Amino acid sequence: MKIYRYEALENELREQLLNGRYRNGERLPSIRTLCADYGVSKATVLHALHRLESDQWVVAQPKSGYFVQLPTIKSPKPNKVDTPVAPAPVTVPAIFRDIMGRSAAFDILPADGFAESSQHLVLLNRLISRRLRTHPEQKANYYDEPAGKIGLREALTELYRQRLLNTTPEEICITSGCQHALFLALMATCKRGDTVAVESPAFYGVLQIMEQLELNIIEISADAEMGLDVTELAEKISRWPIKACVVSPNFGTPTGSQMPLASRQRLLQLALQHQFYVIEDDIYGDLAFGSESPAPLKALDEHQQVILCGSFSKSLSRDLRIGWIMGAALQDKLVQLKLITQLASPQAVQGGLAQFIAEGHYRRYVAQYKQRLREQRDQLLYELKQHWGDKISYSQPKGGLCLWVELPAHIDTQISYQGLLEQGVVLTPGVLFSAHGLYHNYLRISFSQPLTTRRRAALHQLFQALL
Amino acid sequence: MKIYRYEALENELREQLLNGRYRNGERLPSIRTLCADYGVSKATVLHALHRLESDQWVVAQPKSGYFVQLPTIKSPKPNKVDTPVAPAPVTVPAIFRDIMGRSAAFDILPADGFAESSQHLVLLNRLISRRLRTHPEQKANYYDEPAGKIGLREALTELYRQRLLNTTPEEICITSGCQHALFLALMATCKRGDTVAVESPAFYGVLQIMEQLELNIIEISADAEMGLDVTELAEKISRWPIKACVVSPNFGTPTGSQMPLASRQRLLQLALQHQFYVIEDDIYGDLAFGSESPAPLKALDEHQQVILCGSFSKSLSRDLRIGWIMGAALQDKLVQLKLITQLASPQAVQGGLAQFIAEGHYRRYVAQYKQRLREQRDQLLYELKQHWGDKISYSQPKGGLCLWVELPAHIDTQISYQGLLEQGVVLTPGVLFSAHGLYHNYLRISFSQPLTTRRRAALHQLFQALL
Repeated sequence: MKIYRYEALENELREQLLNGRYRNGERLPSIRTLCADYGVSKATVLHALHRLESDQWVVAQPKSGYFVQLPTIKSPKPNKVDTPVAPAPVTVPAIFRDIMGRSAAFDILPADGFAESSQHLVLLNRLISRRLRTHPEQKANYYDEPAGKIGLREALTELYRQRLLNTTPEEICITSGCQHALFLALMATCKRGDTVAVESPAFYGVLQIMEQLELNIIEISADAEMGLDVTELAEKISRWPIKACVVSPNFGTPTGSQMPLASRQRLLQLALQHQFYVIEDDIYGDLAFGSESPAPLKALDEHQQVILCGSFSKSLSRDLRIGWIMGAALQDKLVQLKLITQLASPQAVQGGLAQFIAEGHYRRYVAQYKQRLREQRDQLLYELKQHWGDKISYSQPKGGLCLWVELPAHIDTQISYQGLLEQGVVLTPGVLFSAHGLYHNYLRISFSQPLTTRRRAALHQLFQALL
Repeated sequence: MKIYRYEALENELREQLLNGRYRNGERLPSIRTLCADYGVSKATVLHALHRLESDQWVVAQPKSGYFVQLPTIKSPKPNKVDTPVAPAPVTVPAIFRDIMGRSAAFDILPADGFAESSQHLVLLNRLISRRLRTHPEQKANYYDEPAGKIGLREALTELYRQRLLNTTPEEICITSGCQHALFLALMATCKRGDTVAVESPAFYGVLQIMEQLELNIIEISADAEMGLDVTELAEKISRWPIKACVVSPNFGTPTGSQMPLASRQRLLQLALQHQFYVIEDDIYGDLAFGSESPAPLKALDEHQQVILCGSFSKSLSRDLRIGWIMGAALQDKLVQLKLITQLASPQAVQGGLAQFIAEGHYRRYVAQYKQRLREQRDQLLYELKQHWGDKISYSQPKGGLCLWVELPAHIDTQISYQGLLEQGVVLTPGVLFSAHGLYHNYLRISFSQPLTTRRRAALHQLFQALL
């Protein structure tokens, strides 16, 4: 099939727009520049631009040129779902384990790998390697300090200070990732049979911990933009006392919502009034698409009731296995639980990370990464809009890694899981995010990976399987 | 003070004997060689040797020379202690946490550090660093396989095959150390209020896990040579059913005992008859002072009742934070618990370790290390004999890292803990090894560190404080 020159150029420019080469509102290169860059005539360039304009990818402004105008996303946001009133035990279906077992939970096409440059990781690894080489025998013969290396705890203190949380290294304990921290937090605050309130849709890792610890759950519906519905929480706990409430105030999975200040304050008032702990999952806290990372809920914690759990797994590398917990009044107990469950964390990794943060590399890298995530979010939103139009709703998170998508009620996203998996495409069905089998017509889609040609094709396979 | 030449030579030789430069029974260099090496007269050499002979460090054999004869250790072994009959909850005294928190639990003088060459760790670190540099971005964006990297599990399979345990990589799950593995094993086999039989004296890490999981304990007295008293176990569990029994058949802490085959077989018969799981702590399994590492109990496990927990922390490096669990019939549940508690282990560390083992470095290093440990054990035994004679009893383990020492009944070793700590000397009191406050007149002393001049002085401080 013959491809005309204007078609080739149009495809090339469309690809660049999808890949985030230009930002929304940015001016495209001039017609003269495009002619020179691609070795084509002015007529060919104009033809290609007119076609992009009619598809609403760009808009012409007289005497100024062509400007990128990615389609405005005005899809309705996903609905809140009515959650059951009474607490219930947690039973996690087998599909949870399957998905959680797959490293792929945040990638629809794991086989595609990851082709981005990773200079920051090369540098971080160099710092870790240097620590490994320095006095290896000391590291071999002594365990770490119980709460983790002081240098890393100091570096974390500084990172949180920038997010308006004043803390000290003594208030931080290093863990083996955020899942480990959440496990310690629930172990420290609850006994078997206790009830815990969890925002719904919820992070499936928390549901699995609760099943293991035999805790009862009250799901509290959460809004795709505003997060936990504190009014619903107040109503439910007046009837059913709770020991803890698990929330992700900043960009938690799957919705990527952000709790407004008023809700945060009200939540802490409730915690004081009803004497429960708030377990804050802050793993996405550094991934705000604005220039500033928002304060964690814990910054408002005047009464030692917020246990903050965090990790470098989402912002830097999943392979570090380094997280942390700030346990408020329970810190001693949490350090003890950390020792009981895993004794220590590798000292070289902690030392390398501390240096990486102290020298500003972490901050620089996260700034770049957030920029890339924002572009990837926009590409994903555009694809959804193009293919599903107004037939579906989805969240438009201002941070984090995921979109939360609602399909028409007659669709069950779980049904397509196995079939897509056989094609190498991993779908994350909505039922994963509830202990009560809610969200059968929802799914989570992550924009943590660049939307390569093959991933876009996988996305289309997913669309076709579902609608 | 003037030091005579023969005194200087005598001290030098004594130091060499203590530091294991010569083995027991080995011939010392000839008188002529000693004259040449130290630039002294024959009379001086003879004077020094006669003094060593009268102290029973060496023995002269006519026409052959002087032979090393380290004092025969024939001290009685520590007594078994009567343990309470009925199960009881576990409450761990605060001193446990203090000692467990100290990286120093295996070193009486942590400030002295560790001066041995560590070429093997430099090599291992190089292998890990190489993995870190290779495709760092892949490691950053995907979690590990749920059970851990297949390469490392294959390497472990081969190590265990050499110890007569035929297993497959599918039966192994990588954990974050042995403590983590023991935690998973007790979580998988027991619920709150269940009873677990534990050898007494017991590893304090297990007692802490049991306290946290609210399990009841039956202590079964263990012999310093033969380990768990299976007859006592049979009697107790006929009255008090148990869900699991925790044992260290090979050189467990604190006694370093080794269960004979008949006891192992009887234990497995009991497990089958009374339907409980045997949790085998195999962390010292590779540290046998003979040339062959003994088979783990699990090698006899025909009915899927033995859960083996192991780690590289004692044989290679505590900073790796890599252990494993072979969960028999419960393997799926254990992998799931691993995911819930900590998700994954670092892939570069696993990859580097797999290569280190596959290329034979692990085996070579462990062989050297065991040799050194045996010499350090002999030095420690000698010191004990010299200072305490027959006033005390101690175990004479054929593997592992520790001696178990019994003092006269009126002595309470815990009383000296704080005072010694203020001098930088860490004593590990016997009460740590029981949930019932047994062993007040016992202590554990590790020979994992070389008995440097400063450590020997610390040992003497410890002697003086106690007797």
